[in-house]
Formats: sequence, structure tokens, C-alpha cells
Amino acid sequence: MGKGGKSHEEEENMAAWLVGLNTLKIQPFKLPPLGPHDVKVRMKAVGICGSDVHFLKTLRLADFVVKEPMVIGHECAGIIEEVGSEVKNLVPGDRVALEPGISCWRCDLCKEGRYNLCPEMKFFATPPVHGSLAHQVVHPAYLCFKLPDNVSLEEGAMCEPLSVGVHACRRANIGPETNVLVMGAGPIGLVTMLAARAFGAPRIVIVDVNDNRLSVAKDLGADEVVKVSTNMQDIPEEVERICKAMGAGVDVSFDCAGLNKTMSTALTATSAGGKVCLVGMGHTEMTVPLTPAATREVDVIGIFRYKNTWPLCLEFLRSGKIDVKPLITHRFGFSQKEVEEAFETSARGGNAIKIFRETFLSYLVWHLVNNG
Amino acid sequence: MGKGGKSHEEEENMAAWLVGLNTLKIQPFKLPPLGPHDVKVRMKAVGICGSDVHFLKTLRLADFVVKEPMVIGHECAGIIEEVGSEVKNLVPGDRVALEPGISCWRCDLCKEGRYNLCPEMKFFATPPVHGSLAHQVVHPAYLCFKLPDNVSLEEGAMCEPLSVGVHACRRANIGPETNVLVMGAGPIGLVTMLAARAFGAPRIVIVDVNDNRLSVAKDLGADEVVKVSTNMQDIPEEVERICKAMGAGVDVSFDCAGLNKTMSTALTATSAGGKVCLVGMGHTEMTVPLTPAATREVDVIGIFRYKNTWPLCLEFLRSGKIDVKPLITHRFGFSQKEVEEAFETSARGGNAIKIFRETFLSYLVWHLVNNG
Amino acid sequence: MGKGGKSHEEEENMAAWLVGLNTLKIQPFKLPPLGPHDVKVRMKAVGICGSDVHFLKTLRLADFVVKEPMVIGHECAGIIEEVGSEVKNLVPGDRVALEPGISCWRCDLCKEGRYNLCPEMKFFATPPVHGSLAHQVVHPAYLCFKLPDNVSLEEGAMCEPLSVGVHACRRANIGPETNVLVMGAGPIGLVTMLAARAFGAPRIVIVDVNDNRLSVAKDLGADEVVKVSTNMQDIPEEVERICKAMGAGVDVSFDCAGLNKTMSTALTATSAGGKVCLVGMGHTEMTVPLTPAATREVDVIGIFRYKNTWPLCLEFLRSGKIDVKPLITHRFGFSQKEVEEAFETSARGGNAIKIFRETFLSYLVWHLVNNG
Amino acid sequence: MGKGGKSHEEEENMAAWLVGLNTLKIQPFKLPPLGPHDVKVRMKAVGICGSDVHFLKTLRLADFVVKEPMVIGHECAGIIEEVGSEVKNLVPGDRVALEPGISCWRCDLCKEGRYNLCPEMKFFATPPVHGSLAHQVVHPAYLCFKLPDNVSLEEGAMCEPLSVGVHACRRANIGPETNVLVMGAGPIGLVTMLAARAFGAPRIVIVDVNDNRLSVAKDLGADEVVKVSTNMQDIPEEVERICKAMGAGVDVSFDCAGLNKTMSTALTATSAGGKVCLVGMGHTEMTVPLTPAATREVDVIGIFRYKNTWPLCLEFLRSGKIDVKPLITHRFGFSQKEVEEAFETSARGGNAIKIFRETFLSYLVWHLVNNG
Repeated sequence: MGKGGKSHEEEENMAAWLVGLNTLKIQPFKLPPLGPHDVKVRMKAVGICGSDVHFLKTLRLADFVVKEPMVIGHECAGIIEEVGSEVKNLVPGDRVALEPGISCWRCDLCKEGRYNLCPEMKFFATPPVHGSLAHQVVHPAYLCFKLPDNVSLEEGAMCEPLSVGVHACRRANIGPETNVLVMGAGPIGLVTMLAARAFGAPRIVIVDVNDNRLSVAKDLGADEVVKVSTNMQDIPEEVERICKAMGAGVDVSFDCAGLNKTMSTALTATSAGGKVCLVGMGHTEMTVPLTPAATREVDVIGIFRYKNTWPLCLEFLRSGKIDVKPLITHRFGFSQKEVEEAFETSARGGNAIKIFRETFLSYLVWHLVNNG
Repeated sequence: MGKGGKSHEEEENMAAWLVGLNTLKIQPFKLPPLGPHDVKVRMKAVGICGSDVHFLKTLRLADFVVKEPMVIGHECAGIIEEVGSEVKNLVPGDRVALEPGISCWRCDLCKEGRYNLCPEMKFFATPPVHGSLAHQVVHPAYLCFKLPDNVSLEEGAMCEPLSVGVHACRRANIGPETNVLVMGAGPIGLVTMLAARAFGAPRIVIVDVNDNRLSVAKDLGADEVVKVSTNMQDIPEEVERICKAMGAGVDVSFDCAGLNKTMSTALTATSAGGKVCLVGMGHTEMTVPLTPAATREVDVIGIFRYKNTWPLCLEFLRSGKIDVKPLITHRFGFSQKEVEEAFETSARGGNAIKIFRETFLSYLVWHLVNNG
Repeated sequence: MGKGGKSHEEEENMAAWLVGLNTLKIQPFKLPPLGPHDVKVRMKAVGICGSDVHFLKTLRLADFVVKEPMVIGHECAGIIEEVGSEVKNLVPGDRVALEPGISCWRCDLCKEGRYNLCPEMKFFATPPVHGSLAHQVVHPAYLCFKLPDNVSLEEGAMCEPLSVGVHACRRANIGPETNVLVMGAGPIGLVTMLAARAFGAPRIVIVDVNDNRLSVAKDLGADEVVKVSTNMQDIPEEVERICKAMGAGVDVSFDCAGLNKTMSTALTATSAGGKVCLVGMGHTEMTVPLTPAATREVDVIGIFRYKNTWPLCLEFLRSGKIDVKPLITHRFGFSQKEVEEAFETSARGGNAIKIFRETFLSYLVWHLVNNG
Repeated sequence: MGKGGKSHEEEENMAAWLVGLNTLKIQPFKLPPLGPHDVKVRMKAVGICGSDVHFLKTLRLADFVVKEPMVIGHECAGIIEEVGSEVKNLVPGDRVALEPGISCWRCDLCKEGRYNLCPEMKFFATPPVHGSLAHQVVHPAYLCFKLPDNVSLEEGAMCEPLSVGVHACRRANIGPETNVLVMGAGPIGLVTMLAARAFGAPRIVIVDVNDNRLSVAKDLGADEVVKVSTNMQDIPEEVERICKAMGAGVDVSFDCAGLNKTMSTALTATSAGGKVCLVGMGHTEMTVPLTPAATREVDVIGIFRYKNTWPLCLEFLRSGKIDVKPLITHRFGFSQKEVEEAFETSARGGNAIKIFRETFLSYLVWHLVNNG
């Protein structure tokens, strides 16, 4: 039962709209009709990531530009309220995590199983598509994944950032023989590290410029941490320390910062026949020693979002192979004031992970994770 | 029978030694003893490639430095003269092409089938290992591949440069569904193009700054050629012309120049989910738009030399799927004067391919290919 | 303009219905409404394959049972008559080949790119789904592939059987280094052989019990043919002849018959580290020497239908790498009498390939191919 | 120091010779000379496996026949006593596990990284090559792997059977998304189960006819066990119970028995797109429903021995991801009487795993593992 005795159905659906530069407004959000293969989900936990903050601050990200007011948010979990006529795998009351992108299933990339690269992708809060920081959303049932009993809605929302790490590990083919280097101990570096561990990586070294981040990384399971500078000249000496910390060849490096320096370090530190997976997007044009890496057959693997990752993320959470709870450090309710506060906190925290969660009276209450 | 009635055995084994900067000398070369798994080969055709010329002009290449006089040459074919006690697959008189690198077969990379990356590789004319521009060499039998009847010794020597293209195509997984872009129409661009065609690439566009090279490429089978400038600003317009020439997505690009501009063009022109294979080594540090490529999951594949390519090269030559004869434009004999002339011609021709061939009187006679 | 001055639109849509055991009737067929992503196609050429005949004779195939009258036919090509509101890549008048299966795009297998295994597949003429031997059908635009100018509608219809061979070659990873053995020179054996050649197989040996089939196979490009018996005892001697005919190791065998004897032969003849791809479905339970094959790491690869094969088939036809015209030996018009005659001819011919084709006065006229 | 004050060097090297049917004799064994890349190893722990017992009882295994007296044993670990002149990675005193097979490194399979399939493989105790149940053996250094400090010599010897499971998991591509079915809870079933868990398999169901074996399997970490009969008629009902126990699709089945019934069960239980890996070798000719499996694209993967598995096995043992100690249930010394007793115990135990271990006075003392 909602606030004041009104049922959920009677309440107006409210959402956090990005209406202009640095301006979020909680306003009514009319849901689209429920198709036969759709479900209506009451949102219970929504995280904010760097891209949400970036859109708020600049109204754009890469080639995507916010031209019309848009509901924000894409890391989310909730409870099924209604299912379309053809939906067979879900019933009202089911707790689900939502995969945010709807691909076309008609283009070559979709048909080949690389739907994350679909040029017609409709993705929560990527303009002009509305996001999920709302009381309710309508979404295809096949993109809603039932949470195991021991996985909370908050953890369910964390499947989204975790999916980035999982997809990177899949593309880089991480397994029990892969010694892993992670450049950057921000949120994405951390989820990549957690994913690499869950894929069986026997040894993980993580690198950052910030002692606090490295300390978090160590607590979360890094075998060794290496502190580095922002100075390009230090690369040779730092590579030496990284290799010493690894105590073996570096089979795969994940560059979770995407800067000239981190990429140069990764390319240099990785052993012959290894891979560097570029996850972070710090610099667009990069100046890096690509040729010496190529002549050791060190391949550079790109990633974009993820595909088919939710079931695996949920299995990792269920089995305890990954624990994302330590990544959640702030929580916020769903009021105008709290939403603003959450985004401000997030912005201050760099790339922090934050979660908004519904609590009492049917209103969303926001959580903010900040490991920055 | 050799010159003056002396048998091959009685003659002294002569070789072209790199004895100092820009200095080659034909001098006696004492062969090592013939091991049980070795063969002695009378050289009949030896090509020169850019690396040979580079060593001559600078006494170094990448980290390899010529410190002692060294026999030069590594693209070669000849006739078996003697076989070791355990050799079963070859007999004297067999015409063979030689794979130039002897790996250790004890390191992890060798054992995993990536022997081209073996850190203990002994490779013809890579210091301090002697090369094969000599009357005779001793080599492991398993690295000598019998020529089909319809493949000449000259063509056999061409297996070496062709192997670079074949290995690149294998690593980039070229097949009948792969539209291919080749950046650079020099010798390596051309052999890569020929290999891509033989692997079934349905459409190949090749790009260069030089009309003459493009004309050769068209004659050798490129579907379309695109002339470009050396100016970075022209990339967007040139990518547009490349894509138009392809008339479809670019699945794999081979950068056979390895310059900032060629690599930037390749990364930009390649479709989502495609690959860029870096073959050329023009620039060491590269300034390229790596992140936009990575976010389309365009992977960068490095290559180093080749592995297990000779049988396939010989099959391509035997079946006529590849014809390397048009690449051979100059021929030289094996005298002090002609060797010098051959290297001079080669140096003038840029990255030209040249072949030295034994002819009369048991002396090698050199051929020079120059498509520059 | 149709017969008697009536436009296509005014004519009644007729189709060949399977209404009972051995009973086909040409009857009116009401088209479903045209969805926004659908097209309406006027059928111009429809082939019949063994499964069509099997349904006619037994009303079932594997677990699929014909319980209600059903339009037959699934190998087809035609001309676009109308396009749905969202269709962008096709316009009326386009000549297209149709991929017959509509998968759900919601299950795990679809999402991973293996849509041919979708448990909810709706496939032309697989009960209870109607087929395409009709004047007109409505089909999703993304499953209609524009024919190159030099590819006829008949050849377009042949993309369906050819797809089986192409999918088998893809799963078995055929390329220019794969020596191929094909067991069975029926229609599927032939299309598999043609596909293997187009994928670059350097050497193909084909095996059958029937001289006539072997002669067709030789004409279509087999390097060698080997005649065998139906007697299990002959396997050792026949394997010896097969290996001799290959003159090298057998890297991949396609068993296009699927009988104890053919599979036993394939498993025995294939070299260590090779693959046997089971394409034919003669026997269900098989008695074969699986263990000796497994201990040479000879893998057995299964295939089911195909996925993403039409563009490649059309490219093979366009480029001339595959010529399917010799496979088409009979043609029939679309009258009650001719349809019956076509199926009878087909049944007599074993697994023959046959094509029905529209000709004059807007009525379909059927062609029958019989290479049996 | 050896027995009676004699140094190791002065002692005669004794070994357990298979001299005739059911006849083992401890006799002097002359070591070959130590080559530059070889090491001399003092054996400390040697296991016996089914193949050893099979040779003892029948003097043959598959095509291998014992024609001359032969030293038995191939699962082993020991301590380096002497190293050849070119050995750099090992020194006397190092504790090592030995990979038993020396491949030729000249054939195509070796060069492609599939050295386990080398036709010229020289493998401990595979006639006519001597085994390792001896005081000392000479072996190539590159096949001797240093034990981590926390891994015992006994565990080192267990790397051999464990390697079979590891190689099977690698070929079947086991990872954190692969639900695994294991048919057969004998030694090979158990090591395969342990390996699958270490590769990250989230759910493992193991099947056997024997309650005791299933109980061991459950203790060692199986998620569920399913007891079955030896009756073919029960397969449908048993598959139902297996699928229910899995609670999800079976992605990969390992048939560690290799019988008609186990293979039929595996082929039927495995989901569309999955794999069955044939590990056991119970039946040679098999009668199984291969076609229905193939039409769901369930591939059958064969394995032969292993390659490059020792480093991974040692990492699994070091990290505790695999604990092989519970598999070791009997230990024997190295006297004529104890060697005989060990083999008798092993024979009684079916496929039991047993370990012989050196203890005091430089003599080997044997351990026997019996989980049968």
C-alpha cells in the first residue's frame, strides 16, 4: 500500500527528470502501454554512475546529446507489479534486476549475438530514451532477471556496473591461468577486479595514484597494490614494480582509466601473447607505444557496455564469489532535495557508485555509494 | 657440378657477411656440424627485405644490434644436399623453402603453439645468428618444406614475406565474410592483400599515397584503391571515401604502414565489432583515436613474424590462389659487385622485395624485386 | 499485371496445403496482417527438400507432427510487393531470398547468437507454422535478403539448402588449410562440398555408394571420389582408399548421410585433432567407434539448420565461388497437377532438390531439381 | 644420505620392472646419460593408475604392447639431484612434479601446440619407453615443475591424474557459467569434478551406480549426486532426475565412464548448444543417440592425456582451489613385497588412485589411494 492508503496503481508515477544543465526535477512520468512481452516494475534501488553525472553536468556524453527533458538513471532493480499477456517467466511480486538496453534484434550485430553493439539500441537514460529513476518503469520481461533469495534489491542494481567488469573479463577470456593487472582503482577498476577474481584469476595487481583507493582495493581482495605517479617518465620504473608485484607474467591488463599513462603502462607491462583490455575512457586520442606491444602480439581489446551478463552477475552474488555490498557507501531517498544531494555527492566523489532505494511510503529513497 | 669441375662438397662455402656499417663482404662461412635432425641445403634463391637493408645501414633493428660480423639473408629456398641420420621426410635433391626461425620448444609460448614469440628464438640474420645468403646452410629438417613441382625456388623464397601476410590473416581470422581494408601498398601491404584474397576476403580496398603502388595493387587484384594524403586533417574525408569504395562495413583493417595517420584511419574506418591488425612498424609511439575504436569493440591485433605458415603458403602457390611472380622484378648474381648493387637497388626502392638466385657455375645469382 | 487483367492485389492468394497423408491441395491462403517490420513477398521460386516430402508421406518429422492442414514449402525467393511502415532496407520490386525461421529473440540461445537453436522458433512448414509455397507470404523484413543483380530468383531459393552446407562449414571452421572428406553425394553432400570449396578447402574427397552421384560430384568440383559399399566390414579398406585419395590427413569430415557406416568411416578416417561434422540424419541411434576417435581428439560437431547464412550464400553466388545452377534439373508450374507431379518426382529422386517457379500470367510455375 | 651411509650417487638405481604377465620385479635400472637440458630426479612419490594395472594384467593397452621388460609408473614427483649444463630454471634440491610425456617438437601437431597428440610421443611406461617407479630418473628439465612450498611431493604426483580433468575442462571450456554433469564417480570422475569446480563451474551434478562413490563425491564438493542403474531402459527417468538435480540446463557433460549407457545419458541430458566430453574409455564401439544430440548442436569433445597442465594444477593445489589429499588413502614402501601389495590393492579397488612414496633411507615407500 502506498502513501495515504492509495494503491500503487492510483499514485502518479514520478521520475527524476534531467531538464537542463545541472538541473534535475522530480516530475510526473507517463508510462508507455504494457506490451504483451513487457512487465511493469516498481523501482526499489537505482544507482548513479559517472555517465549520469556527466549528462547532468554537460548534457552530453560522446555523441549523445540531451535535447529534450529526459528521465535519468539506469542501474536498477525493483519488484514486478504487472506482466504482459505473453510473459511466462515472471509474476507480480518477483524481485528483479533490470538490464537497461533494448536492442533491435534485426541488425547483423544483434543476429550474431553482439547486441551490445546494436546501432539502434534503446538504453535507459541515453538520449532520447528515458531512464529508470522513477517509481515505475515498463520494460521487456526478457531483460528483467529474478533475484536469488539471498541477493538484495540494492545488490541487484549493482549488476549494472558489475556487468562492465564481467563483460571485460569475458572478452579478455579471464580464467584460472590469467594473471591480471588492473590500472585504476575507481569503481570500474574495482568491479573489474572483483569480476576477474570470480572468473578465477589467480593473481591480481591493481594500480592507482591514490592511497585510499588502493587501500579499498586491497580490502576487496587485490593480491598486491602498486602506487604510481601521473608522470609519464616514471613508467619504466613503475612497470618494473608492477612486474615484481605480479611475480609472474602479466597475461591480461585492464586499463580502467583510459589515460595515456595508464594505457602506456599496461601495453608495456603485459607479456608477449597477452591482452590489454581498454575499459576506461579518460582520453579519446591516445599517445601510446602501440607498436612494441603489437610486435609482442599483445592485443588491445575494446569493450562497450555488456551483453548477457545479468544471469552471471546474479550467480556471482548468490554464490558469494562476488560481494558488492562494500561498494555501497551512501543511500538517499527519492525527494527533490535528496536526489540533488545524491548527485552532488556523487560528483564530488569522482566516479563513485551510488544507489537510490525505495523505502517507506512507496517513495524511492536513495543510496549513495562512494568509494572515491 | 660447380665451377671449374669442382663438386659442391669441395668448394668453399661462401656467404655475404655484414661486416660493418654499409659494408657487405663475400667471405668463407664455416658450416656447423650436421645434427641428426638437420639437413644441409644448397641455397638457390634468397630475397632481401627491409630489415636486411636496415641492418646494413644502421647495424641494428629494434633491440637487435649487430656487434660481430654476421651473414645476412633470411628469405630463402634451395636444394637438399645432405640429411642427418634421423631425417625421414627429406632426401638429397629435394627442393625446399626454409622457415628461418629456430625456437626453443621448452618455454611456455613454444609449448602453447605460439613459438613465434619464443624469447630464445634463433632467427637467420637476427644478431648474433647467421643468415642464409650463402652457398650452403645447415638447418633443422622440420623447418624445410618441400616445394610442389609447379613452384619455383624463387617462389619458395617468397614464402617468407608471404608468411607475414598469412600470419596476419590468420590472427585477424580472415574468411569469405571479411571485407578487408589494407593501409599501405608496399611489399607487406601487397602480400597481405594477396593472402587476404586467398583466405577468401570478398572485397579488398587498398590505400596508399603513391599512384604507382596503387596501380600495382590494382593489377594484383585489389577491388578498389584509394589515394590519400599524408595530412592528418584529411582523415574524415578519406575514411568516407574508403567506406564508399568498400560499399559495406570494413570488417578487418591491416595497417601495413604503422604510422599515426594510417592507424588512425584504420581505427576510424573499421566497423563496430571489427579488428585492426597492426602489421607495419613505422611509428613506435602512436597517437591514435584508440578509445572511440574500443567503444565500438574494434580490437587491435598485433603480429610478430609467423608460425606454421610455410605449408599454407606453398599450397597457395601450388593452387594458384596466390601468384607472387609479379612481385619479383630484379634478379642478381652472387658476386661482391652484384650483392652490393642488389642492396643499393633495394635501398633506393624503399621497402622493395628482391631475390638473389643461384644460376650457373654454382654461384648464386641475385634477383631484385622492386615494386616501390 | 496478373491473369485476366486482375492486379496481384485483387487476386486470391493460393497456396499448396498439406491436408492429409500424401495429399496436397492448392487452396486459398489468407495472409496475416502486415506488421510494421514485415514485408509482403510475391513468391517466384520455391524448392522442395526431403523434409517437405517426408511430411507429405508421413505427416511428421522427428518430433514435429502435422495435425492441421498446413501450407508446405520453405526454400524460396520472390519479389517485394509491400513493406511495413518501419521497413527501411527494402522497397517494392526488390528481389529477395527468404530465410524461413523466425526466432523469439528473448531466450538465452537467441541472445547469445545461436538463434537457430531457439526453442520457440517459427519455421516455414514446420507444423503448426505455414510454409511458403504460395502466391504471397508475409515475412519479417530482416529475414528477406536482396538478391545481387546477377543472382536469379531460382538461385535465391537455393540459398536455403546451401545454408546447411555453409553453416556446417562455419561450425567445422573450414578454411584454406582444411582437407575435407564428404560422406554422401546427395543434395546435402553436394551443397556441403560446394560450401567447403568456397570456404577455401584445398582438397575435397567425396564418398558414395552410387556411381552417378559420384560423377555429378566430380563434375561439381570434387578433387577425388571414392566409391564404397554398404558393408561395415569394408570400412578398413575403404578408409585406406579414402586416405590415399586425400593424399594428406583428413582435417574435417562431413557425414552427410548419418548412417552407422558413414559415421564409422568418418570417425576412423579423420586425423588426430580433426573434426567430424554430423549433417545427415539417417540413423538416430548410432553404433560407431566413438572412443578411438575421442582419444585422437577428433571432435563430433552437430549442426541444426543455420544462422546468418543468407548474406554469405548470396555473396558466394554473386562472386561465382559457388554455382548452384547445375543442381536445378526439373522445373514445375503451380497447378494442382504440377505440384503433385513435382512431389512425386522428388520422392522418386531420393533427397532431390527441386524448384518451383512463377512464370507467366503472375501464376507460379514450379521447377524441380533432381540430382539423385 | 642413503641407506648404510652410501650416498645417493653410490647406490644402484633400482626400479620396478614389468617383466611378464602379472609379474613386477625390483631390479637395477641404468639411467641414460644426462643431456644438457636434462635433470636427474630422485623419485619421492609415484602413483599407480588404472593403465599401470592394465599393463600388469594384460601386457597391453589399446595398441600399445609390452614386448620387453619395462619400468612401470608415470605419476610422479621428486627432488632434483643434478642438472644438465644448459638448465637454468632448476637447481639440485628443488622439489618437482614430472610431466611424463616427451613429444618430438617437429611434427605439425607439436608445432601447433597440440603436442599431446604427437605421434612420436615418448611417455613414461608406455611401451617401449621406461616409466618412473624408480629411485632416479633422467627427464627434460622443461617437463619438471617446481612445487610451491605448501604443496607436498605426494600432491605433486597427483598432478598427473588431475591433469586429465584439467585438460578435459579446458577442451570443454568450463567457466563460471557452465553447469556441469559428471558421469562416473571413480578417480577420473572425481578429478574432473574437482577441476570443473576450480574452473568455476557453478553447479555440478555427479552420477554413479555406487552409493559409496557418490558419498565420496558429495564430500569432495558435488552439489548433487544421482544414483543410477546399469539398465538402458532407465535412461529417460534418470535424465529427468539429473535435470531436476541440476535445476538448470546441463551445459557440459563429462562422460568419465565411457559406456553406452553413460554416453547415452550424457548426450540426452545435455542442453542445446552444449558439449559432451568423452573422458572414460569403457566401450570402444558405442551405441548412442548421436543424431538427436547433433541436431541440438551438442558437440562431442574427445580428449587424450593433457598438455601444459602442470603449472595450472600446481596453482590449484597451492591456492587450495583443489585439495587432492582426500584422494590418497593408501601408502606403500618400495620393496618387492610392498610394490606387489600395492598393485594388488589397486586392482581390487577398480580404478583406484594410489601413491608410492620414498620415506627413510632413500628407499621409496608407496602410498595407495583407493576411493573405489
